Amino acid sequence: MRGIWGKNIILSIFGESHGSAIGIVIGGLPPGLSLDFELINRELARRAPGWNNLTSQRRERDEIEILSGYFNNRTTGTPLCGIIRNKDSKPEDYKEIKNLIRPGHGDYTGHIKYKGFNDYRGGGHFSGRLTAPIVFGGAIAKQILMKRNIAIGSHIKSILDIEDRSFNKISVEEELILDLAARHFPVLDEDQGRKMEKIISQVRKEGDSVGGTIETAIINVPVGLGEPFFHSVESRLSQMMFSIPSVKAIEFGIGFDMGNAKGSQVKDEYIIKDGKIKTLENHNGGIVGGLSNGMPIIFTIALKPTPSIGLTQKTVNIESMEEVEINIKGRHDPCILPRAIPVVEGGTALVILDLLIEMEGRSWMN
Amino acid sequence: MRGIWGKNIILSIFGESHGSAIGIVIGGLPPGLSLDFELINRELARRAPGWNNLTSQRRERDEIEILSGYFNNRTTGTPLCGIIRNKDSKPEDYKEIKNLIRPGHGDYTGHIKYKGFNDYRGGGHFSGRLTAPIVFGGAIAKQILMKRNIAIGSHIKSILDIEDRSFNKISVEEELILDLAARHFPVLDEDQGRKMEKIISQVRKEGDSVGGTIETAIINVPVGLGEPFFHSVESRLSQMMFSIPSVKAIEFGIGFDMGNAKGSQVKDEYIIKDGKIKTLENHNGGIVGGLSNGMPIIFTIALKPTPSIGLTQKTVNIESMEEVEINIKGRHDPCILPRAIPVVEGGTALVILDLLIEMEGRSWMN
Amino acid sequence: MRGIWGKNIILSIFGESHGSAIGIVIGGLPPGLSLDFELINRELARRAPGWNNLTSQRRERDEIEILSGYFNNRTTGTPLCGIIRNKDSKPEDYKEIKNLIRPGHGDYTGHIKYKGFNDYRGGGHFSGRLTAPIVFGGAIAKQILMKRNIAIGSHIKSILDIEDRSFNKISVEEELILDLAARHFPVLDEDQGRKMEKIISQVRKEGDSVGGTIETAIINVPVGLGEPFFHSVESRLSQMMFSIPSVKAIEFGIGFDMGNAKGSQVKDEYIIKDGKIKTLENHNGGIVGGLSNGMPIIFTIALKPTPSIGLTQKTVNIESMEEVEINIKGRHDPCILPRAIPVVEGGTALVILDLLIEMEGRSWMN
Amino acid sequence: MRGIWGKNIILSIFGESHGSAIGIVIGGLPPGLSLDFELINRELARRAPGWNNLTSQRRERDEIEILSGYFNNRTTGTPLCGIIRNKDSKPEDYKEIKNLIRPGHGDYTGHIKYKGFNDYRGGGHFSGRLTAPIVFGGAIAKQILMKRNIAIGSHIKSILDIEDRSFNKISVEEELILDLAARHFPVLDEDQGRKMEKIISQVRKEGDSVGGTIETAIINVPVGLGEPFFHSVESRLSQMMFSIPSVKAIEFGIGFDMGNAKGSQVKDEYIIKDGKIKTLENHNGGIVGGLSNGMPIIFTIALKPTPSIGLTQKTVNIESMEEVEINIKGRHDPCILPRAIPVVEGGTALVILDLLIEMEGRSWMN
Repeated sequence: MRGIWGKNIILSIFGESHGSAIGIVIGGLPPGLSLDFELINRELARRAPGWNNLTSQRRERDEIEILSGYFNNRTTGTPLCGIIRNKDSKPEDYKEIKNLIRPGHGDYTGHIKYKGFNDYRGGGHFSGRLTAPIVFGGAIAKQILMKRNIAIGSHIKSILDIEDRSFNKISVEEELILDLAARHFPVLDEDQGRKMEKIISQVRKEGDSVGGTIETAIINVPVGLGEPFFHSVESRLSQMMFSIPSVKAIEFGIGFDMGNAKGSQVKDEYIIKDGKIKTLENHNGGIVGGLSNGMPIIFTIALKPTPSIGLTQKTVNIESMEEVEINIKGRHDPCILPRAIPVVEGGTALVILDLLIEMEGRSWMN
Repeated sequence: MRGIWGKNIILSIFGESHGSAIGIVIGGLPPGLSLDFELINRELARRAPGWNNLTSQRRERDEIEILSGYFNNRTTGTPLCGIIRNKDSKPEDYKEIKNLIRPGHGDYTGHIKYKGFNDYRGGGHFSGRLTAPIVFGGAIAKQILMKRNIAIGSHIKSILDIEDRSFNKISVEEELILDLAARHFPVLDEDQGRKMEKIISQVRKEGDSVGGTIETAIINVPVGLGEPFFHSVESRLSQMMFSIPSVKAIEFGIGFDMGNAKGSQVKDEYIIKDGKIKTLENHNGGIVGGLSNGMPIIFTIALKPTPSIGLTQKTVNIESMEEVEINIKGRHDPCILPRAIPVVEGGTALVILDLLIEMEGRSWMN
Repeated sequence: MRGIWGKNIILSIFGESHGSAIGIVIGGLPPGLSLDFELINRELARRAPGWNNLTSQRRERDEIEILSGYFNNRTTGTPLCGIIRNKDSKPEDYKEIKNLIRPGHGDYTGHIKYKGFNDYRGGGHFSGRLTAPIVFGGAIAKQILMKRNIAIGSHIKSILDIEDRSFNKISVEEELILDLAARHFPVLDEDQGRKMEKIISQVRKEGDSVGGTIETAIINVPVGLGEPFFHSVESRLSQMMFSIPSVKAIEFGIGFDMGNAKGSQVKDEYIIKDGKIKTLENHNGGIVGGLSNGMPIIFTIALKPTPSIGLTQKTVNIESMEEVEINIKGRHDPCILPRAIPVVEGGTALVILDLLIEMEGRSWMN
Repeated sequence: MRGIWGKNIILSIFGESHGSAIGIVIGGLPPGLSLDFELINRELARRAPGWNNLTSQRRERDEIEILSGYFNNRTTGTPLCGIIRNKDSKPEDYKEIKNLIRPGHGDYTGHIKYKGFNDYRGGGHFSGRLTAPIVFGGAIAKQILMKRNIAIGSHIKSILDIEDRSFNKISVEEELILDLAARHFPVLDEDQGRKMEKIISQVRKEGDSVGGTIETAIINVPVGLGEPFFHSVESRLSQMMFSIPSVKAIEFGIGFDMGNAKGSQVKDEYIIKDGKIKTLENHNGGIVGGLSNGMPIIFTIALKPTPSIGLTQKTVNIESMEEVEINIKGRHDPCILPRAIPVVEGGTALVILDLLIEMEGRSWMN
């Protein structure tokens, strides 16, 4: 609790959007790992704002300063702390709306929970900015998982009613994953992708925002990760996904379509392929009985439209307890999905790594 | 991990479907509580099989024997252990299919994880039967939450394409919740409920099964439960829900429809009502910034059709590594939803209680 | 918290001395382990009362009934629950002193903590009887550690002013350990042992009791167990030892004598012996920087005299808040040390196993 | 694990002695607390080296930079991160002995555990310098506990054979505690204190070092803190104390003297005093049945002499695996006790605060 996550890889995240710095302490990394800063910076850049006109215009390169746990370009095995200074913050943007709780954000709930002492500027500790440390940790986890050929890739599955096609649940090529991972706006069908970008641009002009869904695949996961109760792969992944601001739904495999099906329609029968047990189909998204079954793990999440929109909204002045109107200024994302993807993938990598160490110990990491 | 859940209320569950007993140890209960066995038995009966022709015909009244933590009809405050003996087990039903891994169950993943030593009979530790202890613990949590007027109710929202109407997200009456909680087949629209029952009966005759969705509401939750990261209310509830066998998806508020919306369409503006801050609508399902906002918490889960169906399926003999066919016998549920509801509600009660103690301490429980 | 211990091996203990049963749930055991019931029963017998005239005359063979996690004489890898029924309890012994808090026991602190609802009979959940489940779990841990030749042995180091000689800190023979482990009253110097037994007999006649110290050695522990902060080997062992009723002090290596020494007198210089790095002496008791260094881990604990003595003592009636006198009846141990030894060793085994899995994973256990 | 401690107050510490910075993340602090920097700096100064000729001559004022969780001079309730930059490090002091494992330090065990990748300079993550963050967190905990009049004080009880007198176990005055807390070399008997200082000076000239014992008292602790098993007050305090480098022993109340006593000699009978239940004596050091009983909690720890001494010692070159000799240079403490005291007290404050929140919740902190 309280900003702490994990069992074998332990994260402690801290910081506020417009405070001095944000950061993360990561315990449980193997000693001797030379961090792949190209990967780390690519992932941080994917999450950073300002890379094109589809995102918030806050321009801030998230630069990691490592304070501990790294010596002679190798992890030491003791806790690694990385921080990112907040440079381009313009807290004055938020001053005038200090007491006006922004609908859809954590302003109100945070105000009550923290008795009015929370840093309200830009959401403070509730800000999506706090996901940058998760991306950092996630990039390290991705690097480690590569040793096992475990790869994680995502694409934007839908924005409004524009739908990308889905992953082939039986088989997701590593090549495809690596290709997606290098992109700022990953889709499987480029035509649909262009339509999505067009809608986002349009919505931005309207001062509105738009939600969507992201589909993620994890390949080459060994059989048996997870626990039957409380710590199923679905439990662990969903816990992480719902730490990402704006995520409101998750489904594994065909998910909600399971509720619309007969057992005879969604059975995942077993076959032997190349000497290994596989399922003929993969309605369950690679997880059965809470454990990974060796098939691609596939899940989809839905993110809500950024609640910061240009339209006037009703709200309450929390100090005076009066109903008022609010116009949210500042530099906001019309669509958070592209920037959310490295967070989704990084969080996923951390979960899979934590579960893998649980099952197989640590020696394979060295 | 390893069958353990919770921080302030701690559960440890154990047992196998056809072993000697299943049970639970619950730590963190307040001392001096006189357990409401009527409530406990009602909840256990709702989960038990055999109550009508829509469920498995295994007739087993789940009778709790309390081994510890209860003295002179009061909780002592020390760990409470309750066990349920397995009486009507017919393990011979499973002998002949020992090495035939049943599609869609935890047989294969469990076999690999536990290196072939898991109790394969009826799913063993993976069995839905292990949810009975959660129902027991959940009934106690429900009883405690009543002191705060926090009530939890559910209804079957859909089975195949038959849909019940939804909860009114702005306001769910306590009366309605209590009414639903007393029923074996809770729906809001009785006509739709009858259609659902008809479909289940029909599917049972076909030797098939059917999935569906359950909508759950929690009312009178104070503002501020949860944590911004890793332990959001959504994180905690989804972790628990994905501990329930067959659950494959969850959404909070309008969930996946968020992905299909513009920000201007799904804003939850604030107003003052009866001197309190409320939202005008409740697309977020009572959770914003990961914390409860005082509105009804509303979520929907999807359950897959029971994978044990009467049809012949392809599978693999895990011993001989040959492709074979399997016909699953035994007494199975054509639709698990009615029996899953007390588990969903009990698990929900445990999560809310754990978070409430985190925020408000323990003194209110006495 | 709340009766839960461990990270990789997780214990949940429950029960009251005169309730229905006491027990333990053990998570994290490897699958496929055939339990050594001879070892388990030997350890339980060493802890059980009534084996000779030096202990409480409550005669109760602690018989483990395994409820889960064991199938076809093998652990399944899922949580193993073992219970021990309370048979020879004579709760009426305690009735008349219900409100008279016994000096030195948990009666008063438990009464306040649990608001008067704790099971006061024989100490209830505070009873030393609750250590039987730890002995059970500890015997399993001992069995597993044998695969690595890690052995744990103890002897009574002193009772009153009668002192046994100490372990040779540089080298403790496995043979010696195994010999000690088979005994009810283990000492290194038999003559001193006889004097101790004589003193205990005498004290028993006086209606008094007597404390003492126990020295424990763990051999063949690999280098590197533990963590530098919060989870040092000393931290973990001491946490466990102070869970054993009556333990009031612990020292590692020469312990308190460190405070009486100059650095030049207690240096543990390194040498190479048989190709391995060893220390020339072992003042640090096998733990340096919080981590095991490959030398025998040696620690000594002090246990207080059983506070239940035949003499009249001053106390308070907690109901009427009057000062009164108390005469404690019942069957008590004049010296708890012999019965504490299997608890000390079992608890130690659990700690070492938990730390070993942390460092080396689980595969070596199969 | 892995640098994480606590349940209700959660610490995550990181850093290496000669790296970029050391620091701590503290979760679970109440919102709205204005930190008492005078207290914080006093405590840090007590721990810092160089304050007189009895300590290491490394002169480094430990200056805390707060990165998060503090806004408008108040805690926000979200994780507070404080870091201390390493300024006066002279890592070249350590280069020449890189492969020479210093006897008595964590060099060897750390080298093996972290496969040679640990930062060896000045002990790296094993350095006593890592206790500065604990002192910082502990000072905050002390400040919070003041709201309940819970005060913690210590004195040097012995150095070599020079003994200070002991606390009066029945009653320790708050005034005395506050007086001790303001001192760099706290003792009860000034004459004995001067003798101790003289011995330390002398030992320093000899290039030797010296150990000793510290006695700590905690007053005004409410009845009922702790848990009967695994989380007794003794378990929690000892776990923390053995996180402090050099601590090798701990005893509660009369501790080891319990082993030398008859029950009739060390009984803590109950009486009523000022309408409250008290014990007539306090052999148990304020903890019975693992729980606090309202009497002063009193414990004594032993610290070993600093292993870095000027004498030539035998050791091993870990690279070449040859036996060699080592002369440890650098600026070392002839006696670590004075600097350890704020760590002992800070760690104690954190433990008591964590247990107090567990029992009484958080509302009293605001």
